[in-house]
Amino acid sequence: MRLAELSKRSGVPTATIKYYLREGLLPQGRKVTATQADYDEAHLRRLRLVRALIQIGRVPVADARRVLDYVDDDSLGQTIRLGAALWELPHELEPDEEDPRTAAARVEVDRLLELLGWTTARDIGELSPNFRVLTAAIVRLADLGYPMDADKLLPYAEQLGRLAAFDMDRLEHLETPVEKVEAAVADAVLFEPVLISLRRIAQEEESARRWGLE
Amino acid sequence: MRLAELSKRSGVPTATIKYYLREGLLPQGRKVTATQADYDEAHLRRLRLVRALIQIGRVPVADARRVLDYVDDDSLGQTIRLGAALWELPHELEPDEEDPRTAAARVEVDRLLELLGWTTARDIGELSPNFRVLTAAIVRLADLGYPMDADKLLPYAEQLGRLAAFDMDRLEHLETPVEKVEAAVADAVLFEPVLISLRRIAQEEESARRWGLE
Repeated sequence: MRLAELSKRSGVPTATIKYYLREGLLPQGRKVTATQADYDEAHLRRLRLVRALIQIGRVPVADARRVLDYVDDDSLGQTIRLGAALWELPHELEPDEEDPRTAAARVEVDRLLELLGWTTARDIGELSPNFRVLTAAIVRLADLGYPMDADKLLPYAEQLGRLAAFDMDRLEHLETPVEKVEAAVADAVLFEPVLISLRRIAQEEESARRWGLE
Repeated sequence: MRLAELSKRSGVPTATIKYYLREGLLPQGRKVTATQADYDEAHLRRLRLVRALIQIGRVPVADARRVLDYVDDDSLGQTIRLGAALWELPHELEPDEEDPRTAAARVEVDRLLELLGWTTARDIGELSPNFRVLTAAIVRLADLGYPMDADKLLPYAEQLGRLAAFDMDRLEHLETPVEKVEAAVADAVLFEPVLISLRRIAQEEESARRWGLE
């Protein structure tokens, strides 16, 4: 398809598409004349993902480019490629090394992973932004008067472990590695809001059950 | 305690505390002289919550004030008070009524709640921003090529329902209604990042199990 059709099918204005092409967020189309290029379904899929990253995930353009570089890097194995793409998404929380509670929180996260038998996560450790966000959030929760430890977090982590099997099942049926990584990025940007809203609805339901709807 | 000690114990500069007092985010202390006021542990707890809302939750000051107004509104019952405080937190996704898929997504959300037997959530329906975020995210996921329906979401919602019981258990042991609502707000700002990072770690672990760590 030509640029005009790509714009029509995606709902993204042509000027924005041209900007994404210039910034390397979208691969160039196949040149058909000096001024025209042809785009396929993979371009359309990628364009929708770029828009979701920027509009909904509020990911800055430079971060989005790094995410997509990993999506396209077929020198990497599946797990590293998935992980690296998601690691490039922005993270709000970083551990404060000045805070003496950070070391204690890190010990709890490591103990949690040991209780779970999650050996890959233990080996990766602090390199993972997820490990760091978890450590930082535990310190901030303690700061607010809600101390957390490995034992309190265990039932949550076990349930999320079960859900991760569903998540990977959803990726399994996708054919190419690039489609799998794209789906994992879309999951982080759009499926996480689904889970958070479902969780809050579940809490309201549980609250109404315990305390009535008054 | 005096302002200086409140600042020292919270790590929040006195100028910032004065700003929060002026903006009504923190209740006034008990006047002891014309220029000095006394603050207690409830002020300290509230101050930490305000800082978490603004710094970590990136909640605008006006939204934070509305959240806290519900935290303090003891004319409301527990469930409504919890719900209303969380509803005032910013939401990134709103359903697009121009999009014909929005109506279909809404039907799926309602069907999901019916399958779950979550009658309170069904009664509240579209009034809840959580219902609206869920509807909007389903439409955007379909847009990216990942169609969702009530049946696909059911196992996730069931697990989150189980976790909501743990969440409410954590609130149960808090003495006053205001402490319960404060804890629920802290949960949304800091425990949701815990769950998201645990979920991503669980996914990496599951990926490594299926596809190896290459």
